[in-house]
Amino acid sequence: MRAYEIIHRKRDGQAIPAGEIAALIRGFTDGEIPDYQMAAFCMAVFFRGMDGAEVEALTRAMLESGDVLDLSAIPGCKVDKHSTGGVGDKISLPLAPLVAACGVRVPMVSGRGLGHTGGTLDKLESIPGFRVDLPVDRFRAQVAELGCCLIGQTARIAPADRRLYALRDVTATVESIPLIAGSIMSKKLAEGIDALVLDVKVGSGAFMKTLEDARRLATTLAGIGHGMGKRVSALLTDMSQPLGRAVGNALEVRESIELLRGGGPADARALTVELGAEMLLLGGVAATLAEARGAIEAAIADGRGLERFRRVVAAQGGDPAVVDDPSRLPSSTMLRDVLAPSAGVVETIDTEGVGLAAMALGAGRARVEDRIDPAAGIVVHKKLGDRVERGEPLCTLHGGRGGEPPERVALRAAAAWRIGPGPTAPPRLVIERIPHDPAR
Amino acid sequence: MRAYEIIHRKRDGQAIPAGEIAALIRGFTDGEIPDYQMAAFCMAVFFRGMDGAEVEALTRAMLESGDVLDLSAIPGCKVDKHSTGGVGDKISLPLAPLVAACGVRVPMVSGRGLGHTGGTLDKLESIPGFRVDLPVDRFRAQVAELGCCLIGQTARIAPADRRLYALRDVTATVESIPLIAGSIMSKKLAEGIDALVLDVKVGSGAFMKTLEDARRLATTLAGIGHGMGKRVSALLTDMSQPLGRAVGNALEVRESIELLRGGGPADARALTVELGAEMLLLGGVAATLAEARGAIEAAIADGRGLERFRRVVAAQGGDPAVVDDPSRLPSSTMLRDVLAPSAGVVETIDTEGVGLAAMALGAGRARVEDRIDPAAGIVVHKKLGDRVERGEPLCTLHGGRGGEPPERVALRAAAAWRIGPGPTAPPRLVIERIPHDPAR
Repeated sequence: MRAYEIIHRKRDGQAIPAGEIAALIRGFTDGEIPDYQMAAFCMAVFFRGMDGAEVEALTRAMLESGDVLDLSAIPGCKVDKHSTGGVGDKISLPLAPLVAACGVRVPMVSGRGLGHTGGTLDKLESIPGFRVDLPVDRFRAQVAELGCCLIGQTARIAPADRRLYALRDVTATVESIPLIAGSIMSKKLAEGIDALVLDVKVGSGAFMKTLEDARRLATTLAGIGHGMGKRVSALLTDMSQPLGRAVGNALEVRESIELLRGGGPADARALTVELGAEMLLLGGVAATLAEARGAIEAAIADGRGLERFRRVVAAQGGDPAVVDDPSRLPSSTMLRDVLAPSAGVVETIDTEGVGLAAMALGAGRARVEDRIDPAAGIVVHKKLGDRVERGEPLCTLHGGRGGEPPERVALRAAAAWRIGPGPTAPPRLVIERIPHDPAR
Repeated sequence: MRAYEIIHRKRDGQAIPAGEIAALIRGFTDGEIPDYQMAAFCMAVFFRGMDGAEVEALTRAMLESGDVLDLSAIPGCKVDKHSTGGVGDKISLPLAPLVAACGVRVPMVSGRGLGHTGGTLDKLESIPGFRVDLPVDRFRAQVAELGCCLIGQTARIAPADRRLYALRDVTATVESIPLIAGSIMSKKLAEGIDALVLDVKVGSGAFMKTLEDARRLATTLAGIGHGMGKRVSALLTDMSQPLGRAVGNALEVRESIELLRGGGPADARALTVELGAEMLLLGGVAATLAEARGAIEAAIADGRGLERFRRVVAAQGGDPAVVDDPSRLPSSTMLRDVLAPSAGVVETIDTEGVGLAAMALGAGRARVEDRIDPAAGIVVHKKLGDRVERGEPLCTLHGGRGGEPPERVALRAAAAWRIGPGPTAPPRLVIERIPHDPAR
């Protein structure tokens, strides 16, 4: 009754030795430890937490349940970025080619959207022909040749995490910082990276609604990475409103191309530069953050990032002409403006509400098996602190096949904006920076 | 995803409406709600608890999952007693016939021993021929005719509780007061009783180690009973040492016969009188506790209790001659005294340790499927506050078939006694009384 004793001790607040956590995960993956014991254990972890050694043991056990990519034949420091997820977060799309263009290799394994949040794979797939299911050999070759490749998780990466996540998803044990951290890091460390930049979102559109929780998640994630000998830094960034203006897959690809052209919304542009600079710093190609920022900005200004993106699209089977002519991307014909019911200043945006409205239009999934329409989504016109007149559009809904018609979503979307007398200052984009600590 | 939402809300500390608890238990019993969701729910309840309405809904749902005996054709108030379990607690055996002899009918459905605690069914079965698996019709007829009948739980009583208990047992969610209370009351209320006296044990041999926990369990149990329209009173009683002197099945039957003869250890005799008085009071045949105590004492003194016990034994297929000749009960030939290593006063007894030593000798079960030997057990000679000389026997071990030999158990048994300089006062037997509150 080893599993029983582990549950019992965790329930009573005792730390579980690394060897026993490894045995628990192995037994669960092998089917020897039944789902009901693992569910009870996860709920006990939800209430009791885990210390650093426990989370590291959990991560290592899940990582070792599957394949770990070996990119050691590719020279240089391989760096990835992970975002904890939000609304309108398309940063991976401009970021990977920009960082690659600056000389740091980015082996990026991403996920799909679920609930109110989007996913990089869905966004990329809105480019006609784009393939995210490349075999490992092609992934490795493209990272070596183009400096970056963006694919989905294979079935052989961290199978224990996939099995555990499926169980947590139906037992209300997703929202546990050690379990979230173990899940993220077991997948990221399987990519064969040397360093990782974390973008931990906080606010109404993030999973972490408070700064305190976001900070705990960030330090937990970084602690696991350090424990495994990786360089890790983290930014806590604002998700109290959608990032940029576009929410929805093809709409976000279009905005990503604008960002690579030097345009696009200021917040999305600034975050691309900040995260890119962190990656260059960890990758060892810049000595200071200022120098690193300058390098990213230069790669935007001279078009090297855009050109790299074009080559990545072509290499992964996509239509590279979308880069010069975004009208080739899927687009909606069912447009509807959501009008402000009163004049004033945008004081808050229920960002999760905006994400759920986009999901309802067909841009996202309520369940894993749901289909999405790449054209569906929302374009945000009024952001926090913006002045708005009565009857002015707050956002435009882009209807999609299989989604609810925009006129049925309009009321819900409008309800996400709270307009008051103001003035309201726009939020700080980068709330906190947790640099890599080489002493650890 | 109803089950998911129920788990989620309980996890976050919200109360679950009665209808949803009923649906959860129904779905779990039908197999529609999987074990892993129920395990997560039980662990959330372990941490968050349940309010009175929730526990009542849980109990009702488990009760209604099976048959509820209808004893309404039998006139008078039907009263049972439930003990939360301990070491040497044989009180049901003298109690049921005494209360029946005083005119209150006792339909008693009991359990078996597990771990350090004994069970009434195992004790009764040490009487050669005694049957505890009577059909419902015979149970009802015997309650009507002899005033009491002692049987085991049928498969048709509260099947949801049996299923849930099996799950809790392997997911470390047994020790939750609302879940314990729901389990107890769903079975007790299925007996068709009108009133119930609770004997909630507290101390080193009880499941509730602190008075506070015992009080919470007692009020939770009483609250459920009141909510279902039953009369319920409770005694919190001492389990910081074995009750009486005999621990083990045939040994406890022998002591029960002594009690019915007016002898036996003072604490077991006193508790029989106290619990019997509570039952007479609830049963409406006595107006005051003093009058009720007097009635029980009279039924001991004039032998009516013993005579009733003899008739019950005969009616249930047992050998009634054991009542006059207890040497007909199984007995052990492997006896060994456990001697005091030093002189002094008995300051504490690890009562769970005594129970586990008896289990090791063959008197109890580590697992449900284990076999017991009715002759095995321990006779306690030195109790709390007793003066002891070096080399005097603390207890005598009675070895059993299939158990460990007494010489291997002796050290463990000795370790249960702590002998100090004293003086130590013997504990108060009835720590607290929670009377029935007709206002509720």
